[in-house]
Amino acid sequence: MAWVAERRVFANSSKMNMTTYWWVNHKQTFKHEIDGEYLWSPKVEKSGARSTFYNNMREAVPGDIVVSYAFGKISYIGEVADYAFTSPKPAEFGKAGVNWATDGWLLPVTWYRLQNIIALKSLLPEIADTFPEKYSPVNVRTGRGNQKAYLAKLSERAFQIIVSHAGANLGYLKKQGNEEGRFISCLDMVEDGLVAQIANNRDLTESERAQLIKARKGQGLFRRNVQLVETACRITGVDNDRLLIASHIKPWRVCSNTDERLDGANGLLLTPTVDLLFDRGLISFNMGGVILRSSRLSTFDVVQLGLESPLQRSVGHFSEAQEVYLSYHRSNVYLP
Amino acid sequence: MAWVAERRVFANSSKMNMTTYWWVNHKQTFKHEIDGEYLWSPKVEKSGARSTFYNNMREAVPGDIVVSYAFGKISYIGEVADYAFTSPKPAEFGKAGVNWATDGWLLPVTWYRLQNIIALKSLLPEIADTFPEKYSPVNVRTGRGNQKAYLAKLSERAFQIIVSHAGANLGYLKKQGNEEGRFISCLDMVEDGLVAQIANNRDLTESERAQLIKARKGQGLFRRNVQLVETACRITGVDNDRLLIASHIKPWRVCSNTDERLDGANGLLLTPTVDLLFDRGLISFNMGGVILRSSRLSTFDVVQLGLESPLQRSVGHFSEAQEVYLSYHRSNVYLP
Repeated sequence: MAWVAERRVFANSSKMNMTTYWWVNHKQTFKHEIDGEYLWSPKVEKSGARSTFYNNMREAVPGDIVVSYAFGKISYIGEVADYAFTSPKPAEFGKAGVNWATDGWLLPVTWYRLQNIIALKSLLPEIADTFPEKYSPVNVRTGRGNQKAYLAKLSERAFQIIVSHAGANLGYLKKQGNEEGRFISCLDMVEDGLVAQIANNRDLTESERAQLIKARKGQGLFRRNVQLVETACRITGVDNDRLLIASHIKPWRVCSNTDERLDGANGLLLTPTVDLLFDRGLISFNMGGVILRSSRLSTFDVVQLGLESPLQRSVGHFSEAQEVYLSYHRSNVYLP
Repeated sequence: MAWVAERRVFANSSKMNMTTYWWVNHKQTFKHEIDGEYLWSPKVEKSGARSTFYNNMREAVPGDIVVSYAFGKISYIGEVADYAFTSPKPAEFGKAGVNWATDGWLLPVTWYRLQNIIALKSLLPEIADTFPEKYSPVNVRTGRGNQKAYLAKLSERAFQIIVSHAGANLGYLKKQGNEEGRFISCLDMVEDGLVAQIANNRDLTESERAQLIKARKGQGLFRRNVQLVETACRITGVDNDRLLIASHIKPWRVCSNTDERLDGANGLLLTPTVDLLFDRGLISFNMGGVILRSSRLSTFDVVQLGLESPLQRSVGHFSEAQEVYLSYHRSNVYLP
């Protein structure tokens, strides 16, 4: 497992816990998810019911290992590159995703193609008893993926069995053509797709299209609307316009309509580092202005960023209109 | 002058000095510069000689006022939206800019169209004696722009004369369709043009094109190359990969070739706020690692950003390869 050990160096230095192993049933979105270096699932089932397999998307942390299963075979192993973020269904899914809700989680994963492709059937005699009774991703009798399963926990022993079949040359695993699986590339992919949709939407005027696209980067009408509501970074207190980012509270990519994307109440003026922390769910706010700090944000990082003291005071109240968006942020962006 | 006074609210709160007025002769790039909300000039004349008119691009500060002159008329007045930055000649200039060097300054300006378009000739009797003998932007005898003049200082009295001819309804000045003239929109425009050029350059392999485009946002091969050289933010000390931006020292948009765009020595790992300050020339480093702080970065901002103490220590030495790029940054990005 030299390959896995070596990769660990790049993981978050403040992360002390052990690696979690995951199994994913891609089915018809296999190619998109491998090429795009991510996993995507709806947040809830079609019926509105919660799903352990979908909730697992937010349990995965950077450095976790994912075994990719599709069409009877294991062809890729991946490393989770960043925390899952709230994201609309990738447009590239097309018909394949027609039965899923639009609102979902996107988990960035860097995939490595195995030298030996493994047929699950050939593995069953060895691996069957490592799968749990409940929430097993595969039916150990038929050797096929379970219909409702998506991302499921895998025991370390199961992972070791799989690796032993992948061949002796794991050290030579070649990265896919797309060599960068970090948060920001997946985000760009999703958002570029939305920009194309907006640019082609003839129900909007040219000026509306332009303003919606500018809003993505906190510019234009959205920025001016935010400036009517907020005057300085809530955390650092900086009020110099050129050092502030107009950041969406409910992310631009998941806003339901034009109004939400341009609503001044859906924005905060934040200095760049605070914007990053807020955007990635490492901090949030409750209505009274108390700062919520994710357990995934280390004290070391907070101190180095000069935010130890600012993060300990209240940032002042929010309006009811802002609270609607903050409530979304706490549930769908913030990582507790 | 209620219009100007009103706009002042948005200017840098730490700026105490008075407004400077400028006059620009656009000539054949008038339309591009108005529509794109910027001014662009080469850094030096064709002969390599320095030009006061080009050097003025870096003297302009946010909040300054620019009078736009082209084809015998004054049709727009603008407000400088951000400091000039180093930028290649906009591709949209096409043949119009064929006689200029590629390396230049881009100054973001928010333009307002005048209700009364003013013919310079009609203004001459009143305004002629306000222009200086040396470096005048116009020939007061012929009423035409001086050949070599681009951005020239204008006296407050000249500006008041112009405003008095613009009509009584300056308060109704309408913003242009493009309503956001901040740094980041101009930057995007320039860089989007370069991305298109790279994407169409058949002298590069597909993989090279992909890596060059990713390098723009500090991703892919460039990021990995930087990680071989740098391990943490030089200023904050943060080493958490997910909180770091791989920032070009010599900006991506002005790199001479593929090697410079992907060279690990041309990058630093910086936390987002530090990245912004470095990118906009508000800080730089000398070879020994002493931090240079721009006079345009206020102490208030530095304190609020939690950078007062980090900015006072040396950040450690740089390699000779890094120093080549840092030298460019000090001369072409840093604002002393």
